[in-house]
Amino acid sequence: MQELISVSESRKCLLLAELLRTDGFVSGQQLCGRFGISRTAVWKMISQLAEEGYEVESVPRKGYRLVACPDVIRPELVGAYLLNRYEGRMEEGRAGSFLRYYDVTGSTNNDAKRLAEEGAPSGTLVAADCQQAGKGRRGRTWSNPAGTNIAMSLLLRPDIQPVHASMLTLVMGMAAARACKEAAPSLQIMIKWPNDIVCEGKKLSGILTEMSSEVDCINYVVVGIGINANLESFPDEISSTASSLKLLTGKNICRAELTASVMYWFEQYYGVFLKTQDLSGLMDEYNSLLAGKNDRVRVLDPNGEFTGISEGINRRGELLVKTEDGTVSEIYAGEVSVRGIYGYT
Amino acid sequence: MQELISVSESRKCLLLAELLRTDGFVSGQQLCGRFGISRTAVWKMISQLAEEGYEVESVPRKGYRLVACPDVIRPELVGAYLLNRYEGRMEEGRAGSFLRYYDVTGSTNNDAKRLAEEGAPSGTLVAADCQQAGKGRRGRTWSNPAGTNIAMSLLLRPDIQPVHASMLTLVMGMAAARACKEAAPSLQIMIKWPNDIVCEGKKLSGILTEMSSEVDCINYVVVGIGINANLESFPDEISSTASSLKLLTGKNICRAELTASVMYWFEQYYGVFLKTQDLSGLMDEYNSLLAGKNDRVRVLDPNGEFTGISEGINRRGELLVKTEDGTVSEIYAGEVSVRGIYGYT
Repeated sequence: MQELISVSESRKCLLLAELLRTDGFVSGQQLCGRFGISRTAVWKMISQLAEEGYEVESVPRKGYRLVACPDVIRPELVGAYLLNRYEGRMEEGRAGSFLRYYDVTGSTNNDAKRLAEEGAPSGTLVAADCQQAGKGRRGRTWSNPAGTNIAMSLLLRPDIQPVHASMLTLVMGMAAARACKEAAPSLQIMIKWPNDIVCEGKKLSGILTEMSSEVDCINYVVVGIGINANLESFPDEISSTASSLKLLTGKNICRAELTASVMYWFEQYYGVFLKTQDLSGLMDEYNSLLAGKNDRVRVLDPNGEFTGISEGINRRGELLVKTEDGTVSEIYAGEVSVRGIYGYT
Repeated sequence: MQELISVSESRKCLLLAELLRTDGFVSGQQLCGRFGISRTAVWKMISQLAEEGYEVESVPRKGYRLVACPDVIRPELVGAYLLNRYEGRMEEGRAGSFLRYYDVTGSTNNDAKRLAEEGAPSGTLVAADCQQAGKGRRGRTWSNPAGTNIAMSLLLRPDIQPVHASMLTLVMGMAAARACKEAAPSLQIMIKWPNDIVCEGKKLSGILTEMSSEVDCINYVVVGIGINANLESFPDEISSTASSLKLLTGKNICRAELTASVMYWFEQYYGVFLKTQDLSGLMDEYNSLLAGKNDRVRVLDPNGEFTGISEGINRRGELLVKTEDGTVSEIYAGEVSVRGIYGYT
């Protein structure tokens, strides 16, 4: 079993959380008391943070002040932001309560699946700075160069029927949209059904949900999500259909904060989902975020294309599309094109 | 990637198939011609089989005759029986066309899942003589001592919706029932919905289907099946609910032949299933094998127990149960008790 960091037990997370949430100085004494360790031990922890790229000002008789964080999605910083979202106490089992980080990996979904097979608990989040063979839906690729984007996969072990697991993709879509809105309030961020996050017709985020199940119970679900955070240039073939938060806002995004925010919002929406094991408590908010709602969409059905008006999702996450003759189709899988509205396929 | 044996390319399988299907002697010359090898090479292969426990009579100018096979489920013998079922030609991709064998393993389902992650092809069958930590449904165990039973797991990569994969359990149930009937024609072998094979109210076989999937496509399915073949004593706590083909017939079962037979029948039924991606072409035969059809059954529904008359499955594999007031419930998961008819829970 590979080692996981428990956010609620990691002193480094707790220390960084304390430094992050204090505008001014945190006294050394305060930190000693908080962690039950000596001043020297506190000083050592601070020194270690400095070595790792955190800029910490240290003033005698005042204490320590965090001046700047490196743009990393390492567990101590993601965990610190998460702790602050939960007012300093993060229960194990919540989304992101256990963390595993890679500088470079093939696919965080594969990492999370391996951890799941080894028995990692529900709520484990795998994040990577650089993902070299990231997986998109249906075998497409989704890769990240180092130091720019977010690639992460959340492991869940929900006690729900396997047939309901597909809805978790939509729950994560909502969390990603909500978190991106927080990070870039000026942008009009929407969801392209079922789970792409889009802005100005360009894709910011994609989600790939994988599941291991028996016939009537789930072994585990891995919800992988990639977010174009600070990437500034895209390959030609996708530059017209993809963008990043940085390109759209002109500002650098703090990836650790955004990662924690996605986990926080996921946990909120997931709690609502689990109550009814469907989206009845979430569909109104989802539909308010849905790109192309009440517009004409083209449904690429394997049995034949058709067009109709998108009426939003139902409680099972199916897209309702009303055709000319007034019948409403419930679209489960497949892809809905909103070409003509947003310019992407 | 662990090595797999391709039945269609294995000389050992082809040689054993030739010996098995010939009542009398097979001439050395005939074998030389068949495999394009020298008489010495044929002799070497025969010697190797002898070392592995096969009793081969060798008579000058007549050739070789297979007198007896060891009771093993090793790939050369399973493959030989399979080749003979397909008249000597086994296309790759068919159930059992690639074989992997373990003397002892934890769980063949886990082995098959690992092979699947490594890229093993659809149709790969993992078999083990002794399974020490076999998995039953919902985390129960299903273990086999050495030299007695069958533990095997078939890897499939069907291009169907994940929601339809549960039906593969029923397809395998039919194959197991059909193969057990062939092996023991005197027994009244039936299926307890959804997939246990039973005889005289005792369980002979159980199936555990696991799946790795995305929202709208399947990565792979592993259908694991255990068959009580030659086990002669059961632990006290299950001796009233489980039995073996040997206990019921008094005869030794050839495990390799039964294994090949399950694969053969699975392939036949699977072909019918894939045409419509449901059980519409199979449900009549399934229902003719169904224990307790038209009898009163008790449905242990999480929302409350109820009783009704079992009317057999529909094309989705759901059990139809008609209650007093005439309504018909479609039972998807959960367990149907036929207590009072067969004496097991």
